[in-house]
Amino acid sequence: MAPPRETIEVTPAEGRPVVSGISDALFWGSLFQGLDRRGPFLQLQIRQLICSAIEEGRLSLGVRMPSSRELATLLKVSRNTVVIAYEQLVDQNFLVSRERSGFYVAGLPKHLGAQPDAVRTAADDCGAARWMERFAVRPSANRNIIKPLNWQDYPYPFIFGQFDPTLFPTNDWRESARAALSVPEINNWARDLIDEDDPALIEQLRLQVLPRRGIRARSDEIMMTIGAQHALYLIARLFTKPETRVGMEDPGYPDARNIFGMLTDKIVPLAVDGDGMVPDASFESCNIAYVTAGHQCPTTAVMPQTRRMELLRKAQERDIVLIEDDYESELISEGASLPPLMSLDRNDRVLYVGSLSKALAPGLRLGYVVAPAPVIRELRALRRLMLRHPPLNNQRVAALFIGLGHYRSHLQRVSRVLLERARILDQLLPQYFNDCSFVRGVGSTSYWVTCPPGCDATELATAALAEGVVIEPGDVFSMTKGTHARCFRLGFSSIRNDRINVGIERLGRLIASMS
Amino acid sequence: MAPPRETIEVTPAEGRPVVSGISDALFWGSLFQGLDRRGPFLQLQIRQLICSAIEEGRLSLGVRMPSSRELATLLKVSRNTVVIAYEQLVDQNFLVSRERSGFYVAGLPKHLGAQPDAVRTAADDCGAARWMERFAVRPSANRNIIKPLNWQDYPYPFIFGQFDPTLFPTNDWRESARAALSVPEINNWARDLIDEDDPALIEQLRLQVLPRRGIRARSDEIMMTIGAQHALYLIARLFTKPETRVGMEDPGYPDARNIFGMLTDKIVPLAVDGDGMVPDASFESCNIAYVTAGHQCPTTAVMPQTRRMELLRKAQERDIVLIEDDYESELISEGASLPPLMSLDRNDRVLYVGSLSKALAPGLRLGYVVAPAPVIRELRALRRLMLRHPPLNNQRVAALFIGLGHYRSHLQRVSRVLLERARILDQLLPQYFNDCSFVRGVGSTSYWVTCPPGCDATELATAALAEGVVIEPGDVFSMTKGTHARCFRLGFSSIRNDRINVGIERLGRLIASMS
Repeated sequence: MAPPRETIEVTPAEGRPVVSGISDALFWGSLFQGLDRRGPFLQLQIRQLICSAIEEGRLSLGVRMPSSRELATLLKVSRNTVVIAYEQLVDQNFLVSRERSGFYVAGLPKHLGAQPDAVRTAADDCGAARWMERFAVRPSANRNIIKPLNWQDYPYPFIFGQFDPTLFPTNDWRESARAALSVPEINNWARDLIDEDDPALIEQLRLQVLPRRGIRARSDEIMMTIGAQHALYLIARLFTKPETRVGMEDPGYPDARNIFGMLTDKIVPLAVDGDGMVPDASFESCNIAYVTAGHQCPTTAVMPQTRRMELLRKAQERDIVLIEDDYESELISEGASLPPLMSLDRNDRVLYVGSLSKALAPGLRLGYVVAPAPVIRELRALRRLMLRHPPLNNQRVAALFIGLGHYRSHLQRVSRVLLERARILDQLLPQYFNDCSFVRGVGSTSYWVTCPPGCDATELATAALAEGVVIEPGDVFSMTKGTHARCFRLGFSSIRNDRINVGIERLGRLIASMS
Repeated sequence: MAPPRETIEVTPAEGRPVVSGISDALFWGSLFQGLDRRGPFLQLQIRQLICSAIEEGRLSLGVRMPSSRELATLLKVSRNTVVIAYEQLVDQNFLVSRERSGFYVAGLPKHLGAQPDAVRTAADDCGAARWMERFAVRPSANRNIIKPLNWQDYPYPFIFGQFDPTLFPTNDWRESARAALSVPEINNWARDLIDEDDPALIEQLRLQVLPRRGIRARSDEIMMTIGAQHALYLIARLFTKPETRVGMEDPGYPDARNIFGMLTDKIVPLAVDGDGMVPDASFESCNIAYVTAGHQCPTTAVMPQTRRMELLRKAQERDIVLIEDDYESELISEGASLPPLMSLDRNDRVLYVGSLSKALAPGLRLGYVVAPAPVIRELRALRRLMLRHPPLNNQRVAALFIGLGHYRSHLQRVSRVLLERARILDQLLPQYFNDCSFVRGVGSTSYWVTCPPGCDATELATAALAEGVVIEPGDVFSMTKGTHARCFRLGFSSIRNDRINVGIERLGRLIASMS
């Protein structure tokens, strides 16, 4: 709501535009140069540009704005758009309107302003060195998966787990998001719930999402997180003492390794074969182990039922807690899915980590953890200290989205599209990657490819990028640098069907030329 | 978008409703008993109730739905509402429509279903005990501020920093939220940005929000967090080694103490007087110190300029890093605000923590930290490990909200309303709290009240709650239990102006009766 009008004294210099010596058209043209005429919400864009110019002092008190007709002509927008924008800015006291004379900048309420003599100087390398010795941890030094942030600018992005704009359920999401903007809904989500979550979302998870994965849970056994990664961080913090032996699949998910590596140096590499993680003597020596049974990350191997049962049995014998990261379930329904470890476990030994936003939009960051109630209780207290709770407006939108059946429809659609891509790749890979070996576990959205001897996948990725093809080199997944130098991950959750052929052809040619 | 229609075989039992022996009207009545006829979006509510009933198996394959006319009559809604709901559910394959016969439940695609013999048993106390020995930390054991979660149900909530529905800028927020639902905006926020933030929001902070507080910062000196608390957690994790001496105001903010207390046992209590934290020898012994210079938490004391300069000088001499939690700036503009420590500091010695969502809706969880670039770099790497980034859709909505000038208008309105409440309280307190002492620093949204001898504030809070009055007992703020047993915090950011009088009268009567 706009505040009631206040009387603001405007004294334009003799009632004329005060544009300090710059020719009018040039000045206004440059002020609005950020306007994207093809973009949405022209009226909002115009308001934003005027607000910023006033806030930053580029438009100062008393400047007369161009008439709505003049500005409309200059910007090539309808006059009505400018009229509405000006009226709103008058309501907000950014402009004042004077009859028969036009609109003037009303200036800003006084604020502190920067202390001119106290502007901080740019940190130089010396400044950086001074800080280093203070840091208790150095997270920036971690080895990590690196994807070009602008992967969307490349025509052939074979990357994993990223957003595909063509799959986003725009209308259904909008319906839910708008419903969450009603006054009663705002009253629900605007509050600080300290250590709780939106009960509506927990209920939707419990009744609709988890049962599809074979998991039954009570509401005190579920907690929301800022994406699945946050669930791992919280679990690691709660369970890892310096002496805790933590089993990590090798190759495995680097961020999970980095998270636990901050808390203990007793990281135990766990062997991986074609059936996923191997429950051998190394496994038996652990206190806690991180497992991707659904699809081993990055090899995509699906752990067979017998090994799942063996893993659970040994975990029980040796009193090992299992963290099951089911990061990719639901995306492709293909063949008979195996039940997750959590649904097979009878001894409250599994902590289950899942994501809601991966299938929708990773930028939303909605994950969750299912665990025995005493664990959830401590996780909630820890999360309260760390950040209280994931934003409640998003929790409510997600609850509505699931409750209206959109999540289920969306997953069906995603599954169809991804399966089609997998079919295309299943045909192309033997043709173009004939010297490579490659696997894709049932239901996985990526292939794990091993290049022929002599072909380094990191060099391949660099060369491919120059040809517009994005892949993820596999070396970073292994604990010992170099072990998986010939491997790469080929994801297909973000590539258009009609781009797959050319992308694979280019990649195949590069592999042949490098080996 | 709805998936293309699939053919689903429906075999209703002889084409009649299959409602297992329960009288029809009763059955449908109970199915829709959750319907809130006064609530918004009746059509959405109806769809949600039908979806849940199908997902949970309460409506099974082949059940014939009531006709749209029947259901409209039963639910007392317009027939068109039911027609639209049914059509949407047909599009989503929850229902099928058979000509001249009506709508039938289409059932659900097969999914795993719970393993009946593997349903986990409820965790009992024994289960809890088993977990205890595994936990590396016990966050649930912390002493913490406790506010009744249902404080909105009490008529006189004198609590601090919570949501006031009458102050939420509903229309302006909606405008920004809807603008963020355009296709180009979705493409912006749906992505995983790994360790980055929405550049538009960083820019708005840099150009509009921070300058009003006298802070100039470059974009590589700002990072978004999940509320201000998250900023404290990240800073603590980055800077606290087991031997790090951390100064904490006493009394002070319990969550900050708890966060650092998880990482070191060298928490140094820092004295507080009427001018806020005292830079004495204890302070000089610290490596890092947490300061609420703007308004000392909980005493509301404003640190005068001379002490600010003294603090900065001593910090520089002793090489102490200062964490400035400016949790309450901007809310009331009252008298001349003093510049924050960060704007006075010339030696890159201050890490500044602020919040965007406190003034709007705590449920949104949008905070930020301003710090030298080498610190922000590590904080980003740490945040990447922990949760990547705060949800980007909310970052984009906030950027639009600020960019459109709504944040500034909103703060002006909030300030007017809160100032009016302060004026009312300034009149009432001397009248009803005549045996107490009380203070409110300029610009603060709470009073710090000390009851007369004999009156325990925790007992007072309990007695007050029984009369519908919510206050926050002060004991939890002090490191040594009992030191502030007679104090309480009286916040006024969530109480209606017309409720203040009766609330204070009741409280005053209780204090008089207990002392």
